[in-house]
Amino acid sequence: MDTSTVLGLCVGMGGLLMGALLAGTNLGMFMNLEAFFIIGFGVAGTIIVSYPMKTLLNVPNVFKNALFAKEMDYVGVVQILVNFATKARREGLLGLEEDVDQLEDKFLQKGMQLVVDGTDIELVRNIMDTDLAFMEMRHKEGEGIFVAGGGFSPTLGIIGTVMGLINVLATLDDPSKIGPAVAVAFIATLYGIGMANMFLLPIAGKLKIRSGEEILLRSMMIEGVVSISAGDNPRIIEEKLKAYLPPKLKAVTVTGSGSGKGGAEEAAAAAAPAAGAKK
Amino acid sequence: MDTSTVLGLCVGMGGLLMGALLAGTNLGMFMNLEAFFIIGFGVAGTIIVSYPMKTLLNVPNVFKNALFAKEMDYVGVVQILVNFATKARREGLLGLEEDVDQLEDKFLQKGMQLVVDGTDIELVRNIMDTDLAFMEMRHKEGEGIFVAGGGFSPTLGIIGTVMGLINVLATLDDPSKIGPAVAVAFIATLYGIGMANMFLLPIAGKLKIRSGEEILLRSMMIEGVVSISAGDNPRIIEEKLKAYLPPKLKAVTVTGSGSGKGGAEEAAAAAAPAAGAKK
Amino acid sequence: MDTSTVLGLCVGMGGLLMGALLAGTNLGMFMNLEAFFIIGFGVAGTIIVSYPMKTLLNVPNVFKNALFAKEMDYVGVVQILVNFATKARREGLLGLEEDVDQLEDKFLQKGMQLVVDGTDIELVRNIMDTDLAFMEMRHKEGEGIFVAGGGFSPTLGIIGTVMGLINVLATLDDPSKIGPAVAVAFIATLYGIGMANMFLLPIAGKLKIRSGEEILLRSMMIEGVVSISAGDNPRIIEEKLKAYLPPKLKAVTVTGSGSGKGGAEEAAAAAAPAAGAKK
Amino acid sequence: MDTSTVLGLCVGMGGLLMGALLAGTNLGMFMNLEAFFIIGFGVAGTIIVSYPMKTLLNVPNVFKNALFAKEMDYVGVVQILVNFATKARREGLLGLEEDVDQLEDKFLQKGMQLVVDGTDIELVRNIMDTDLAFMEMRHKEGEGIFVAGGGFSPTLGIIGTVMGLINVLATLDDPSKIGPAVAVAFIATLYGIGMANMFLLPIAGKLKIRSGEEILLRSMMIEGVVSISAGDNPRIIEEKLKAYLPPKLKAVTVTGSGSGKGGAEEAAAAAAPAAGAKK
Amino acid sequence: MDTSTVLGLCVGMGGLLMGALLAGTNLGMFMNLEAFFIIGFGVAGTIIVSYPMKTLLNVPNVFKNALFAKEMDYVGVVQILVNFATKARREGLLGLEEDVDQLEDKFLQKGMQLVVDGTDIELVRNIMDTDLAFMEMRHKEGEGIFVAGGGFSPTLGIIGTVMGLINVLATLDDPSKIGPAVAVAFIATLYGIGMANMFLLPIAGKLKIRSGEEILLRSMMIEGVVSISAGDNPRIIEEKLKAYLPPKLKAVTVTGSGSGKGGAEEAAAAAAPAAGAKK
Repeated sequence: MDTSTVLGLCVGMGGLLMGALLAGTNLGMFMNLEAFFIIGFGVAGTIIVSYPMKTLLNVPNVFKNALFAKEMDYVGVVQILVNFATKARREGLLGLEEDVDQLEDKFLQKGMQLVVDGTDIELVRNIMDTDLAFMEMRHKEGEGIFVAGGGFSPTLGIIGTVMGLINVLATLDDPSKIGPAVAVAFIATLYGIGMANMFLLPIAGKLKIRSGEEILLRSMMIEGVVSISAGDNPRIIEEKLKAYLPPKLKAVTVTGSGSGKGGAEEAAAAAAPAAGAKK
Repeated sequence: MDTSTVLGLCVGMGGLLMGALLAGTNLGMFMNLEAFFIIGFGVAGTIIVSYPMKTLLNVPNVFKNALFAKEMDYVGVVQILVNFATKARREGLLGLEEDVDQLEDKFLQKGMQLVVDGTDIELVRNIMDTDLAFMEMRHKEGEGIFVAGGGFSPTLGIIGTVMGLINVLATLDDPSKIGPAVAVAFIATLYGIGMANMFLLPIAGKLKIRSGEEILLRSMMIEGVVSISAGDNPRIIEEKLKAYLPPKLKAVTVTGSGSGKGGAEEAAAAAAPAAGAKK
Repeated sequence: MDTSTVLGLCVGMGGLLMGALLAGTNLGMFMNLEAFFIIGFGVAGTIIVSYPMKTLLNVPNVFKNALFAKEMDYVGVVQILVNFATKARREGLLGLEEDVDQLEDKFLQKGMQLVVDGTDIELVRNIMDTDLAFMEMRHKEGEGIFVAGGGFSPTLGIIGTVMGLINVLATLDDPSKIGPAVAVAFIATLYGIGMANMFLLPIAGKLKIRSGEEILLRSMMIEGVVSISAGDNPRIIEEKLKAYLPPKLKAVTVTGSGSGKGGAEEAAAAAAPAAGAKK
Repeated sequence: MDTSTVLGLCVGMGGLLMGALLAGTNLGMFMNLEAFFIIGFGVAGTIIVSYPMKTLLNVPNVFKNALFAKEMDYVGVVQILVNFATKARREGLLGLEEDVDQLEDKFLQKGMQLVVDGTDIELVRNIMDTDLAFMEMRHKEGEGIFVAGGGFSPTLGIIGTVMGLINVLATLDDPSKIGPAVAVAFIATLYGIGMANMFLLPIAGKLKIRSGEEILLRSMMIEGVVSISAGDNPRIIEEKLKAYLPPKLKAVTVTGSGSGKGGAEEAAAAAAPAAGAKK
Repeated sequence: MDTSTVLGLCVGMGGLLMGALLAGTNLGMFMNLEAFFIIGFGVAGTIIVSYPMKTLLNVPNVFKNALFAKEMDYVGVVQILVNFATKARREGLLGLEEDVDQLEDKFLQKGMQLVVDGTDIELVRNIMDTDLAFMEMRHKEGEGIFVAGGGFSPTLGIIGTVMGLINVLATLDDPSKIGPAVAVAFIATLYGIGMANMFLLPIAGKLKIRSGEEILLRSMMIEGVVSISAGDNPRIIEEKLKAYLPPKLKAVTVTGSGSGKGGAEEAAAAAAPAAGAKK
């Protein structure tokens, strides 16, 4: 459960309601079926035209991802990869077979499986990179639907308001009724701007951040898998992977590197062959 | 037939009509010849100035592409390429000659033809890449016409409205008639924003997605053709091409790789020579 | 003569005039010297500040280029280059000397001259690439003047209108005269938005397209000149250059390659040495 | 203490207050609880939806960084690195161990530690580059919160104003009270635009500049650490690092290079082996 | 003295004044101290927050650069570099020592000094490239101040107008006085848009062009210095450098290359060793 998404929606809507109530607004006035049809169906229509069916059918999943995504466990991935590297040094790559089968993450499992099977390093990196690139592309498409909706929504609000104003101006004779009629016309603008800014664009923002986190995690996995395949020293791998982490998470140690001079010296001693194994 | 384009146009226009009718609007009021001339010819004029004749004459084709484009068959392309790779291993590249002649896709046929003819790999990739790059450029130009139209359309709406307002303000003496006259002036804004947001920009969005799908399909073709030319193992080729697919489509298997340990080991065994054949 | 530029300007202005006349507008009302001074001199001033003198003095040439640019002859360039390649194979590079002297295009002539003189391939490519890059830069600058004008023009329209409104609001006592006075103030907005959208931005669009076409043509020339210098087979050169062309123009053949199996086989036979000659 | 941030906020707010007082505005009128709820909670809500919890909890640190960041000491870093290089030439890399332990900057210390430990140059650069890239990413995220807030804030102001106008138009009967009621509705716009332009966006600008300065400083550190590790001549290192400095700071000398012909000749003599040591 | 900057400012302001006078505006009406405080101090405040002190203190220099920058002498630089190359061929690099001391341009002098001192080519290019990159960065920062000011200025104008409107609407009882009061409120908008579009943004545009010209000139210097260091033939150097020039300036010759067949043949003869000396 993504707490900040739900909390944020509540805080934002709550603020608007609070402001409206303080101003003594009758909230029922904001319920307007005409504006709902124009903004709701209008935005839906533009989105349906803009995207192919199979992308649209995926929107509920994308939205669920924004609401319920699980936290990324960067440190856990570092631990898994360093443990794999340690075991691979002791027992050889084939010794990892069973552990790989038990991995939860499909992406990491696929990569490690290829390594255990003895596939060429460059090919493993190539396949994992391509996979990651297309995951990123699919994420961008999902996020793009919300961005596009957030772009069309305010203009549809304006369309609704202009339609309302035309209707009002062309037909009303009694000046005293113009006020309330214009008020109704403005509700479409409210719906359009509100839907874009209170809902669609913030959700798009969250999806972008989530995608970035997942790409980071998977980049770490690729780095780790390739390093294990190259037979790098576990300490070096830990050092490399920790460079991806924010300062706080860096403090956590797996193999004990960074804990003192001794560890650092060992790492240095190991660095030469590891580097030699690289292209 | 692209169902989502047609469905989306109906949903969007339907929503606007529904909203207008609910508000008791006389729809005939929105029919306005002056606004039609200003927006229609105005936008057409700007587009005609912005693009060369031969690009403009291609607009109907571009539009037809948005409405009637056929679904991309990614899995089919993987199957064709893996089958080619298998046959090429058994019978040599020349054995593919007949199959290549029967290919429907001109782009894939051209590439395979070059391979069967024994053309140098780098040259084949070079020619296919250039061809793809220019296809992308032509797609961008087609899409650009709709984007440009979507940009000029609202400003022409404003031009029409300002012209109408000037006319109203300068000539009307009777205040009671200002309302209806201003209403007419606003119809130009409605046309301008509506045409951009209900039609031109969503179509541009769809064209962009379509172009991306075709580029993806052709990138897969290039990858496959080059791999076949390099004599890669069919399982490796399948693995490489599947990295392009979304998770769901990955499940489909052609050669049976990924179905178990055995397949994976074979793939690994095959990986070394395949990789060795690469630069 | 670029027909679409002239046609587009006529269609756009015609549409506005038609709309205005249908609305019974007295066209003379749109003639306003104050707005002309504010928009015309205002935009001119901002552009003169933004660009150095020598770029500004080149504007008439840039504009002429948008109106009267000649059609690019892509197929003609392919033919010339393939013929050069054929002759170079028969008679050596020095045999091209006379033909090169008669070339109309200065850019191609310069490049071929360097090749005929026996200059190092990489140096030829280097000089031609630099030349092309700076041509592109100069085009961007010319186009940029129109884009900048199109950006400043509507805001100057707003400046004019705000100035007019301030004048009206501050000084008029008779409410019945406010209408016509505000109408006059709005003419500045009309001029500003109109000049940007009916003229400056579409011209900028056309200049961009023209520049793209010329860059494409010259990229083909560079590719061809380098290939001739490398002694590539004429058929291979034709194949390479045709990858730059849209599908329709690809059908045209020069050496007959692509016309049948035989041609393709010959091309394949020729491919090896050609590729070998490349770096 | 970042003087310009505090000074700027005072100058800006002071200017607005001064203008308001000169116009005889009763400042209390601008205090409005409804607008505060709508803008404050509305913007907070959109930001909370857009970003994950742990990024949001970091906002106070980010803001503190904009207010209290210490000046970057570029020249000091050049001096430290050149001194290290000099000492390393005399006493070997191990002779730097103690000095490295006393370094204040964690990033430089980590890098030098790796060098002293004899880690492979490419690996050191790799780890430092990755670390820098992720620092930049975290900075962008922190800055992004302020940019996003600056984007949502004016639209929430419009939402508040539209809500207020709807309320006013729908319920007020007495025309003489419309003025003050509309005035209150406009306060939301004032809050929204004001918060974005007087606070959020300028702070985002400062954060971006700060980030750029820190990246520059760390790029210098990486360049220096790698050069020391490669055993470059101290004068050459100084020359390389000074290229990062603005003209004024370049005048300061450490080793005396650039002070005359002699120094330059020595540098030249040293250049060959230094360059030879590079890849 | 940059004539176009001064001329442009006069033309623009003159156009506005002319328009205002033609409309019978009392120019004194546009003088408004409140608006001056809000826009002037408001924009100053946002800029002071956005940029560090030392960048702000450099604004007068940046502005002076836009007003008084000297014309770039591209042809002069080509001549100097070709003459250096010629002399270096005759007398060796050390023979240039005296000429280098007399160079006016510090950037070229520094580079040539390094070459004369026998510094490694790659290191010279490296140092000059870094220097150029940071000059470009400083230019961008200076230009960025004007762009940021141009972005904040119109919104501060709106803030001022909204503040004025709130004041007017909340306090005025006499409808006949609303007009003049609103007029005053609109002056803030006029100041904000005017300052951005008549001054800040055009100056930013000019600074960008100037920066581009200086970068071009220095790129030519780097190319020339490196070529001299590599011992390239003067004619080849001239050819390379002239590729940077617009067509008109290309006509000027230094060594006489391009003047005829003979020259071209000599150039060709010289090309091989020159190219051989390159990496």
